Amino acid sequence: MDIENSITSTIFRDISFSQKEIDFIDRLLKKIILNKGDVLIDSDTYVNHQYYILSGCLRSYFIDNSGKEHTIQFAINDWWISDYTSLFTSDKSILRVECLKDAVIYKLSRENAEVLYSNFPNIETFIRKKLEKAFASFQKRILDNLSKPAKDRYLQFVNKYPTIVQNVKNYHIASYLGITTESLSRIRKKTP
Amino acid sequence: MDIENSITSTIFRDISFSQKEIDFIDRLLKKIILNKGDVLIDSDTYVNHQYYILSGCLRSYFIDNSGKEHTIQFAINDWWISDYTSLFTSDKSILRVECLKDAVIYKLSRENAEVLYSNFPNIETFIRKKLEKAFASFQKRILDNLSKPAKDRYLQFVNKYPTIVQNVKNYHIASYLGITTESLSRIRKKTP
Repeated sequence: MDIENSITSTIFRDISFSQKEIDFIDRLLKKIILNKGDVLIDSDTYVNHQYYILSGCLRSYFIDNSGKEHTIQFAINDWWISDYTSLFTSDKSILRVECLKDAVIYKLSRENAEVLYSNFPNIETFIRKKLEKAFASFQKRILDNLSKPAKDRYLQFVNKYPTIVQNVKNYHIASYLGITTESLSRIRKKTP
Repeated sequence: MDIENSITSTIFRDISFSQKEIDFIDRLLKKIILNKGDVLIDSDTYVNHQYYILSGCLRSYFIDNSGKEHTIQFAINDWWISDYTSLFTSDKSILRVECLKDAVIYKLSRENAEVLYSNFPNIETFIRKKLEKAFASFQKRILDNLSKPAKDRYLQFVNKYPTIVQNVKNYHIASYLGITTESLSRIRKKTP
């Protein structure tokens, strides 16, 4: 594939590659077409891939003992998703990842990721910085849950991720914010 | 400092360095002596460093609106600590980091970390893997809080981190597990 349209130059768009490098990296990334409702990762399985979203929408979530869903992450275009606890530790998955809107994604195995990092230090830097941001924003979200009213968290979410709001159901957003769908409806009625 | 005793070869112990490299890296790490009770990072400040613990014990915690403390992390020898949300995003800190047991630590600024990573891809790999583990274990802990009984989480903590248990107070452990000190006492009475 030529440089401009390759998945490699889409994902790592700030990095310059030769045509030969593009061809090499493209081959490490496998395209997958998902339909709404497809389950990409099931809980209690071994996870060996992370997934780059080119288009569509996915979410990862956890089902607690009482059957309640807790949405951990939404992912739209240019985001990555996986069960990172399983991917990074070799334990079995505790999350499920499902497709909320027809999607085109690319999977990268753990082994191929290490091949990429050792051959292209720029890619390792790129991914290391993404990981820093992901860790920071996940920690911030947990602390926000402890200290900010649900209404503030809802408005923050809507302002930050308008595209996600358009693609997911109310109960997905409620389970991301840690509130009931009834509370979310009340909040929505009161906000302009 | 010679290779065997240098802080560089202590921190990055799986990586081989020349004497010249050791001297270069040693100069990027600044030693700090902390006494029990010292506050290393206060909330609502800009954080520009991460800290490597050579000896002693520190913890990071969050104080919610009602004044309740939530312990985010304990750190003993060979661990790193900081307010990562502030360090990685340039927002102000939301955590406090305090010294629980007299400590010798080394600080590494964000700028010097980038100097290290760009000069030593091995160090970037080393830190990237630590970051993956930290992200995975933080996410796992949050999900455990949603699904496992406090008693199980207490036993898991005691088995995994016996050295920390010896160095911290009951209310620190309770605030890490997300329970009251009274609940922790009840759990302790019932476990051998």
